[in-house]
Amino acid sequence: MIESPRISEAELTHLGIEAFCRLGLPRGDATEVVKILVMADLFGLSTHGMSRLESYGERLQIGGINPNPKITVERVAAAMVKVNGDNGVGPLVGMRSLEAAMEVAAECGIGIALTRGSNHFGPISPYALLAAEQGFASMIGSNATTTIAPWGGTDARLGNSPLGFGVPNPGGNPFLLDMAMSVVARAKIRDAFKQGREIPNTWGTDAKGFPTTDPKAALDGFLLPVGGHKGYGLALMVDIFAGLLSNAAYLTHIQSWQDAPAEPQNLGHFFILLDTKKLGSTQWLAQRMTDFAQILTDSPAADAEHPVIVPGMIELTKMAEQRRLGIKLSEDTLQLLKKHSQLGDA
Amino acid sequence: MIESPRISEAELTHLGIEAFCRLGLPRGDATEVVKILVMADLFGLSTHGMSRLESYGERLQIGGINPNPKITVERVAAAMVKVNGDNGVGPLVGMRSLEAAMEVAAECGIGIALTRGSNHFGPISPYALLAAEQGFASMIGSNATTTIAPWGGTDARLGNSPLGFGVPNPGGNPFLLDMAMSVVARAKIRDAFKQGREIPNTWGTDAKGFPTTDPKAALDGFLLPVGGHKGYGLALMVDIFAGLLSNAAYLTHIQSWQDAPAEPQNLGHFFILLDTKKLGSTQWLAQRMTDFAQILTDSPAADAEHPVIVPGMIELTKMAEQRRLGIKLSEDTLQLLKKHSQLGDA
Repeated sequence: MIESPRISEAELTHLGIEAFCRLGLPRGDATEVVKILVMADLFGLSTHGMSRLESYGERLQIGGINPNPKITVERVAAAMVKVNGDNGVGPLVGMRSLEAAMEVAAECGIGIALTRGSNHFGPISPYALLAAEQGFASMIGSNATTTIAPWGGTDARLGNSPLGFGVPNPGGNPFLLDMAMSVVARAKIRDAFKQGREIPNTWGTDAKGFPTTDPKAALDGFLLPVGGHKGYGLALMVDIFAGLLSNAAYLTHIQSWQDAPAEPQNLGHFFILLDTKKLGSTQWLAQRMTDFAQILTDSPAADAEHPVIVPGMIELTKMAEQRRLGIKLSEDTLQLLKKHSQLGDA
Repeated sequence: MIESPRISEAELTHLGIEAFCRLGLPRGDATEVVKILVMADLFGLSTHGMSRLESYGERLQIGGINPNPKITVERVAAAMVKVNGDNGVGPLVGMRSLEAAMEVAAECGIGIALTRGSNHFGPISPYALLAAEQGFASMIGSNATTTIAPWGGTDARLGNSPLGFGVPNPGGNPFLLDMAMSVVARAKIRDAFKQGREIPNTWGTDAKGFPTTDPKAALDGFLLPVGGHKGYGLALMVDIFAGLLSNAAYLTHIQSWQDAPAEPQNLGHFFILLDTKKLGSTQWLAQRMTDFAQILTDSPAADAEHPVIVPGMIELTKMAEQRRLGIKLSEDTLQLLKKHSQLGDA
């Protein structure tokens, strides 16, 4: 097995910006997109990092994504903005939405951006970290292409919509939670199938909507949401706030970027930001966050090799390590980068 | 088996108000508390309805809850209020918080109340319904006495904190979601134990923190959160927004009302309200909500007897039925009501 190559944050950023510029983005916009994707790779979330250059790039080339969007921010109330991403690259629309929400939240204590006309915006944790670094707690969600059947239903009508949270921890690691609504990712079912293992009957259903322990049947069926009807409810609420209320597409109205890469997806997001500085001093917050983390991590571990951790610790540890040693990138992603940036030897 | 007696909404409300007045609450405050508890009973959520008169009443009598709180609302920013419940009865503090959050949300588009000094505030769905009836979408959460071990830990350090959502649907049924973080309620494990059945190993752990299929071991252990580490993360985020940021107690700092009924719990809640009227017309929202519900319920059912439903349908159907036929109440709760109100024949 070949070790993945490592690349420095600066070089990955440089190549990424060149690639998106060549795909038609203004340099400033390319820089914002790459900021989110590089953070994803730093966190170890490589499926949501620079590897997305493949799908983003293809869609930019065939006109499925607009390289030069006129993103508009309409302030419909003191603490509420509606963002129209004009079918721009997702992380660019995401960054503009985050900034708009932080601006009104700084003024009003809490603020929300409701975003339409967007595309896949990367993972949530980079936005949550950027917000936390400026003292904002966040709740962020996006809708997604349909892959989940409604609870008790038999066809895909609901996205595996991600929901995320961030909380600043002045002087320490912020808490970052970024969760999709399925019990496991599809890849885990695929692994079980390859290895000939049964899966727990809580992971997925067969094509008829019945829970199954057969990974092959589950791959033909649908992912099951966490906690059954609870995860179903949570997934649809994320879609309501991210898609329905933002005037974006929702549920089956969302175009699949895989089946119809040339069509705008009209994805929706929401960004709710709380300015924690309005609630107490930095010291007050730091003291409470440190105590909160301590109480949890002090619980004696069931398995000594897996002590209790708080959300975000894995990603932030990985980020520190990869800033030191370089970022692990698959050979495929590196070739893709070199091709699009025309700077490498590929 | 004796049928539960039925009682009209008006009579239950009347008896409830008399009971709380005799427990020391001013009539106006008693009316607000009873409004929430009666709605819980109407929804069929009897564990969170008037049956709570038992614990609320006991704690009021021994000074564990303050019958005459000076509830303060401090507006720390245009769209953000901090509420101090002064250890009042939970649903009273909840109602004041909801009203304060709606007031700032009506002005700013979004608003948040962060509440401390509270107690058990009933279920979330009544607040979400009241908000929806006035055109507000909501995200509401509360922390709770610790019953869940941190993921990988071996003692109870985290509450089974409820998180709820409501979305107005002008002319139709609003969507209401009210979920706790455990896969199942403790009562379901108790039922399995009584019936000598094994439980799925996703419901609970033994006292050492290891997942178990033995209901007896699970009753000595801890509830497992939905989706494992995902539910753990979600439960702690709810506690952070409801408890840590509101300056209430959190995690193990929360007093158990069962072990220390005479002590203030200092529970915390958050109420985030969005004024949907700022986003579009009533018709616009009604059309989108109807379409959204239709897409989901049109999914062919895996089991024809259990068609796909949307969140809140069970509770709202039950409410309509019980408004027509009377509210089912346990004999115990009825006796409790008569005793406290001194109006009945008990």
